[in-house]
Amino acid sequence: MATEAAPETPGYRQPDIDVLALQRVLDGPYAEVRDLVRTNLASHAAVLEDAETMGRDEFRERVRELVVEIAATGQTGMGFPAEYGGGGDLGASIAAFETLAYGDLSVLVKVGVQFGLFGGAILQLGTKAHHDAYLRDTITGTTMGCFAMTETGHGSNVQRLGTTAAYDATTQEFVLHTPDDQARKDYIGNAAAHAELAVVFAQLRVATEEGGTPTDQGVHAFVVPLRREGKVLPGIRIEDCGPKMGLDGVDNGRIWFDHVRVPREALLDRFAQVSASGVYTSSIDNPNRRFFTMLGTLVQGRVSVGGAGINAAKVAITLATTYAGRRRQFEATAPPEEDVLLDYGLHQRRLLPLLARTYALHFAQQVVAEQLHDVFTNEVAGTDGEKARRELEARAAGTKALGTWHATRTIQECREACGGAGYLSANRFAALKADTDVFTTFEGDNHVLLQLVAKGLLTDYASEFEDLDQFGMVRFVAATAVETVIERTRVHKLLTRLKDVLPGGDEWAQEAGLLDPNYQLAMLRFREEHMLAGLARRLKRGIDAGDNPGVVFSRVQAHVIAAANAHVERLVLDAFVDACRSVAAEPDLKVALGLLCDLFALSTIEADRAWFMEHGRLGSARSKAISREVDDLCRKLRPLAQDLVDAFGIPAEMLRAPDLLGPA
Amino acid sequence: MATEAAPETPGYRQPDIDVLALQRVLDGPYAEVRDLVRTNLASHAAVLEDAETMGRDEFRERVRELVVEIAATGQTGMGFPAEYGGGGDLGASIAAFETLAYGDLSVLVKVGVQFGLFGGAILQLGTKAHHDAYLRDTITGTTMGCFAMTETGHGSNVQRLGTTAAYDATTQEFVLHTPDDQARKDYIGNAAAHAELAVVFAQLRVATEEGGTPTDQGVHAFVVPLRREGKVLPGIRIEDCGPKMGLDGVDNGRIWFDHVRVPREALLDRFAQVSASGVYTSSIDNPNRRFFTMLGTLVQGRVSVGGAGINAAKVAITLATTYAGRRRQFEATAPPEEDVLLDYGLHQRRLLPLLARTYALHFAQQVVAEQLHDVFTNEVAGTDGEKARRELEARAAGTKALGTWHATRTIQECREACGGAGYLSANRFAALKADTDVFTTFEGDNHVLLQLVAKGLLTDYASEFEDLDQFGMVRFVAATAVETVIERTRVHKLLTRLKDVLPGGDEWAQEAGLLDPNYQLAMLRFREEHMLAGLARRLKRGIDAGDNPGVVFSRVQAHVIAAANAHVERLVLDAFVDACRSVAAEPDLKVALGLLCDLFALSTIEADRAWFMEHGRLGSARSKAISREVDDLCRKLRPLAQDLVDAFGIPAEMLRAPDLLGPA
Repeated sequence: MATEAAPETPGYRQPDIDVLALQRVLDGPYAEVRDLVRTNLASHAAVLEDAETMGRDEFRERVRELVVEIAATGQTGMGFPAEYGGGGDLGASIAAFETLAYGDLSVLVKVGVQFGLFGGAILQLGTKAHHDAYLRDTITGTTMGCFAMTETGHGSNVQRLGTTAAYDATTQEFVLHTPDDQARKDYIGNAAAHAELAVVFAQLRVATEEGGTPTDQGVHAFVVPLRREGKVLPGIRIEDCGPKMGLDGVDNGRIWFDHVRVPREALLDRFAQVSASGVYTSSIDNPNRRFFTMLGTLVQGRVSVGGAGINAAKVAITLATTYAGRRRQFEATAPPEEDVLLDYGLHQRRLLPLLARTYALHFAQQVVAEQLHDVFTNEVAGTDGEKARRELEARAAGTKALGTWHATRTIQECREACGGAGYLSANRFAALKADTDVFTTFEGDNHVLLQLVAKGLLTDYASEFEDLDQFGMVRFVAATAVETVIERTRVHKLLTRLKDVLPGGDEWAQEAGLLDPNYQLAMLRFREEHMLAGLARRLKRGIDAGDNPGVVFSRVQAHVIAAANAHVERLVLDAFVDACRSVAAEPDLKVALGLLCDLFALSTIEADRAWFMEHGRLGSARSKAISREVDDLCRKLRPLAQDLVDAFGIPAEMLRAPDLLGPA
Repeated sequence: MATEAAPETPGYRQPDIDVLALQRVLDGPYAEVRDLVRTNLASHAAVLEDAETMGRDEFRERVRELVVEIAATGQTGMGFPAEYGGGGDLGASIAAFETLAYGDLSVLVKVGVQFGLFGGAILQLGTKAHHDAYLRDTITGTTMGCFAMTETGHGSNVQRLGTTAAYDATTQEFVLHTPDDQARKDYIGNAAAHAELAVVFAQLRVATEEGGTPTDQGVHAFVVPLRREGKVLPGIRIEDCGPKMGLDGVDNGRIWFDHVRVPREALLDRFAQVSASGVYTSSIDNPNRRFFTMLGTLVQGRVSVGGAGINAAKVAITLATTYAGRRRQFEATAPPEEDVLLDYGLHQRRLLPLLARTYALHFAQQVVAEQLHDVFTNEVAGTDGEKARRELEARAAGTKALGTWHATRTIQECREACGGAGYLSANRFAALKADTDVFTTFEGDNHVLLQLVAKGLLTDYASEFEDLDQFGMVRFVAATAVETVIERTRVHKLLTRLKDVLPGGDEWAQEAGLLDPNYQLAMLRFREEHMLAGLARRLKRGIDAGDNPGVVFSRVQAHVIAAANAHVERLVLDAFVDACRSVAAEPDLKVALGLLCDLFALSTIEADRAWFMEHGRLGSARSKAISREVDDLCRKLRPLAQDLVDAFGIPAEMLRAPDLLGPA
C-alpha cells in the first residue's frame, strides 16, 4: 500500500529492531526463568486443545496433573524457602507466573491458588511448625490446598466475614462454623474436587485474659483438613459452584462448616497466638491494623494477577497485530489489490495505542515485582518498613487494576479486529476472553483496589489509616489528612516544581515539546496532584458541612477512582520513561521504545484531554496537536509492529490460530 | 442509607412509575407479539440450563427442535406473506425477534439464520416460483436453510467473493465452484448439521448477448441443495467450524463446492435473469448499483441484530440493577449496617448512564423498525423510494453498530458490577457475553457499517454513490460531494439555524439550560455537522494535493467513524426526545423518561466534552456543570431504577440468577 509509513520528521530514521535484544530487555533479570516457563508451555501446548475437547471433570484432572508436572521442574516453587524445596527467590516466582499467562489460564489460576494463595498463606501467616508440616508437599503439589476467604455475603469487605472460630479450652480446639448461607465460603478454587487442606479465614472468638469472657478478635486464618483420600471429612459440606464463564479446569466450590473442630495448632499464628488455656495475644494491638498487616502479607497474589493480565493482553495483541499485517480487505489504494488491514489508519488507531499501553504496563509491572521482591527479601522493621509495605500494597493494587482492565479491553478490541475468525475457539480469543474476565474482580475488585490506592495517597501511607474502616477513613481524612494533602498539592507550588524541569516558565504547557518526556510526566503529575487536592477539599467541605461521612464518600467516589487512576498512570509512565533510559546504549531499541512511550503518554493525555482543558493545562490547538501526534506515532510504529509483538517471546505453540496467522 | 436520593431541585417531585404502563410504552404497537414471545420464552426456559448441561451436538438438536416448536406458534413467520403461512407484517417480525433476545441466544441466531437470512433471501431476491417452492416449508422449519455469503477471504468486502457460478447453456445449469480455500464459505450458520438448502452468493459468469463470451456479472444468489435426508450431496464438502466462543447451539460450518450443478431456476432472479440460451439481463444496468440493491433488500438482518443487541443489554442491566439494589457491602453510612451497592455514587455512575442509553437505543430501534416496515410494506418507486431505502440502510447500519457495541459494553460492566457471582453461568452473564460477542462483527462489521453511514451523509444518499467502490468513493466525494457538504454544514449557517430554536443568540451554549432538549439536540447536531464538514474538507484537501485516494481515506478514517457515530447518536436522541413527547399525557412517565433522556443526552455530551471544548461549544465551567448534572440525574434516578428495568418486561424465568436476585 502506498501508505504513509513514516511522516517526514526531520532526522527520523526508522529503527531496525533486534527482536531478541528487545526480548532480553523485556524479560529483565529473570530471562532464564521465563525461558524455562516458555519451554514448559510449549511442551504442554496440547492443553489448549484439551480445554475445548475434554469434559469438565476430565479437564480438571488434566490441569491438576499438569500443575504437578510443571511443579517438578521447579517453576512454581521459586518463591518458597530453599529448605523446603523452593527457589528462595520471590521475584523469580512472579516472573514465572506472569509468563505462564501465555498459556492455558486454568493452569495459571490453579497454580496461583495452590502455590500463591494456599502456599503463600501458610508461608506468610504461619510459623515454623506450619512450614515444616505443609510446605514441602505443597511445593510439589502432592498436597493440594485451597484459600477459603471469600464468602457469598462478603467478597470485598473481608473484615465482615461470617464464618466463626471459637476456641474451646477444654479440648484445646477451635470450632469452625458457618452460621448461615451468606457465610458459606464461595468461589473457592481447588475446593470442589482437589483440595485436601484449606486455609480458612474466620472470626476468632477467644478471651484476652486468663478466665476472661471470649470476645471477637477479628478475622484469622486456620489450616483445616477438608478431605482425606479424596473423601470430604465429617462436618464439612462442599458443593461445586457449577458452570462458569471460563476457567473450566479450576474446581471452584462452596464450603460449609458445621462445628468442625481443629487443634489449637491450626491457627496460623505469626501475628497472633492463642494459649492452651485460651488467652489471645498479638504483637499488634489494634485489631484493624492487625487485620491489614495479615492481609498485606498476601500482596503477591495481586502482583501476580496484574502481571498475568498484562501477559494475556500480549497474546491478544500479538494475534491481532500479526493478523492485521497479513489480512487484506477492500481495495483502497491500488485496485484491484486489496489493502492490508494494518495499513488502514483506523486499524492502527485501534491496535497500536493498546500495544504501547501493554509495553508501558509491562515495565510498570517489572517495577512492582521488584519492589515486592525487595520488601519481602529484606524485611525492614519500624516505620520505614511499614511505609514501604504500604506503598507496595498500593502500587500492587493499582497495577493489578489497570493491568486487568487493560487485558479485558485489549482482548475485546483484538477479537473484534479479527472479525469472525476471532470468534472461533481455535484462534484463542474465546478462552482469553472467558478466562481473564474474572481477573478484574478477583484478588480484589478493581474499583475497591483503586479506592485503596486513593486512601494511601490521602493519608500519605500513614500507618494510622489501617486502624480505620471505610466510615472512619472518611472522617479521618477530612479531619486530619486533608490539610496536608492540600498543602502538598497546592497548585502554585505544583506549577513551581514543574517549572524547574520544563522550559517556558508558567507557559510550559505551551512551550514544551509534546515528545519531551518531562512535559508528558509533568502533565500526568499535575493531573494526579490536582485531582488529589480536589478530592481532599471535597471531603473536607462535606464533613465541615456536617454531612454523613458515608454520603460524602459516596458523592466523591468517582473522583476517588479518577485520582487513583491518575496516580497509577503516572507511575506507569515513570516506569516506561526509566525503561527507555535503560536502553540508551542501544540506539535502535531506544528509538523504538521511545516511540511506544510517546504513544502511551500522548494517548493517555488524549484520552483525558477534557480534564486537562477543564483545568487550564491544554488549549484547543494543542489538544488537537496531540491527537495528530498520536496519529503520526501510529504511522511510525506501523512498520515496527510485528517486531514489537514478536519481542514478547510468546511460544508459537501458544498462538495456535491457524486461521489468523497462516499465509496471507 | 442516608443517601442523597433526590437533590433538591425546585419543583421536582419523584415520579411514581406505573410499571405496566411504562412497559406498554416500550412495547409500542406490537405489545401482543412481544407477549406471545414472552410466553414462549417462559415455557421453554429450560433451554437456558440445557445450554450448560448438554453436549454440543445434543444442544444443537435441542435448539433445532425448539425453533420448529416456536415456529408453530407463528412467532417466527410474521414477516412472510400470508399466502405461505406467514403473518404479513414485517414490523411484527422485528418485534418478535428483538424480544426473543431475552432468552437463549443460540435459539435467536438460529431463528435469524432460518427465517431472516435464508427465508429473507428467498423472499427478497427470489420470485414467485421460488416463493412457491420454498417459503411454506421454510416458515414451518420443515426445510432448514442457510445463508452462504461470507467466505474465509471475504467477510466485509462481499463484492470480492471468490465462489463462481458459470452458466452452462448446453445443460441449462449453473456450475458452482470454490476455486481455493480463501473462497470456501465460512462461519455459515445452519451449515454444519441442519441445512438442506443454501442460498449461495457467487460470481456469476455468463454472456450478455446471444452467443457472446461469458463475462463476470458480479455477485448473485442461488438456491443450492446441500443435503438430502441428512446426507451431504456429491460435489459438496462441509466442515464444522469447530468450537466457538459462544452460540453453541448454532451449527456453523464451512462449505466447498466442486463444480456443483444446479438448474437455471436456482438463480434468485428478482433483479437479474439468465435466459435458457445463456443471456444475462437486469433491470439495473450498473453492476455496483445492482449489487447494492440486492444487498439492500436484506437490511432487515441488520435491524434485527441491532434490536437483539439492545434487548440482550436489557437483560444484563436488569440483573445488575436488581442485584445492586439488594447487595450490601461495606459500612459507610450507618455502621454496623452495610450499605446497598446502588446507594454508592460510583455504582450509580457505572449503571445508570448505561440504563439511560439502553432506553435511548430502544426508542431509536423502534424508529428504524418502523421505517423498515414502511419501506418494505409500501414500496415507493423512483428517486424518492430509492432515497428512502438508502436512508433506511444507513440508519439500520448505524443503529446496529451502536446497539451491538452497547450490548458488549453493558454486559461487561454489569458482569463486573456483580463480582464473582457474575462469573457463574447460572447468573446469565457467561452466556450473554459469549453469545453476543459476535454481534459487533457479524451482519456487517460495526466499523465498516459506520463507514457506510458516513458515505450516505457525504453523498446525501445520492444513488450515484452506489456505483462506486471504496476507492472510487473517495474520489467521488472529494470531487463532487464535498462542496455541497461544506456548503450545507457551514458553521455560521449552522449556528444561525440553531439560534432559531434556542434563546441567547450566539451565546446559546452559555444561556440555554442543560436540561433543555433543544440545547441537547443542538449540541449533538452541531457536532455532527461540524464533523461532517471537517471530514469533507480533509478529503478534498488530500485529493487536491494529489494524494492517493486510499491514503487519504486511511488518514481520515477515524474522523469518518467519529462523524458517523455523531450522526447516529443524534438520531438516537431525536428518537428519545420524540418518545418523551409521546407520553406528555402521563405526567409521572413523562418525568421518569425525561430524567433518562436528560441523562442519556448529557452523559453523551460529557463523554465527548473534549471535542465540544476543542470546537468552542463548551467552556470549562459549563463542562464541569454537565458532569455535576449527570451526578444529580443519577441520584434522582436511583430510587426509580428497579421500576425502570422491570418495565422491560423480561420474564422472570429468563433472569434465572438465584445468587443475584435472591433475598438480600
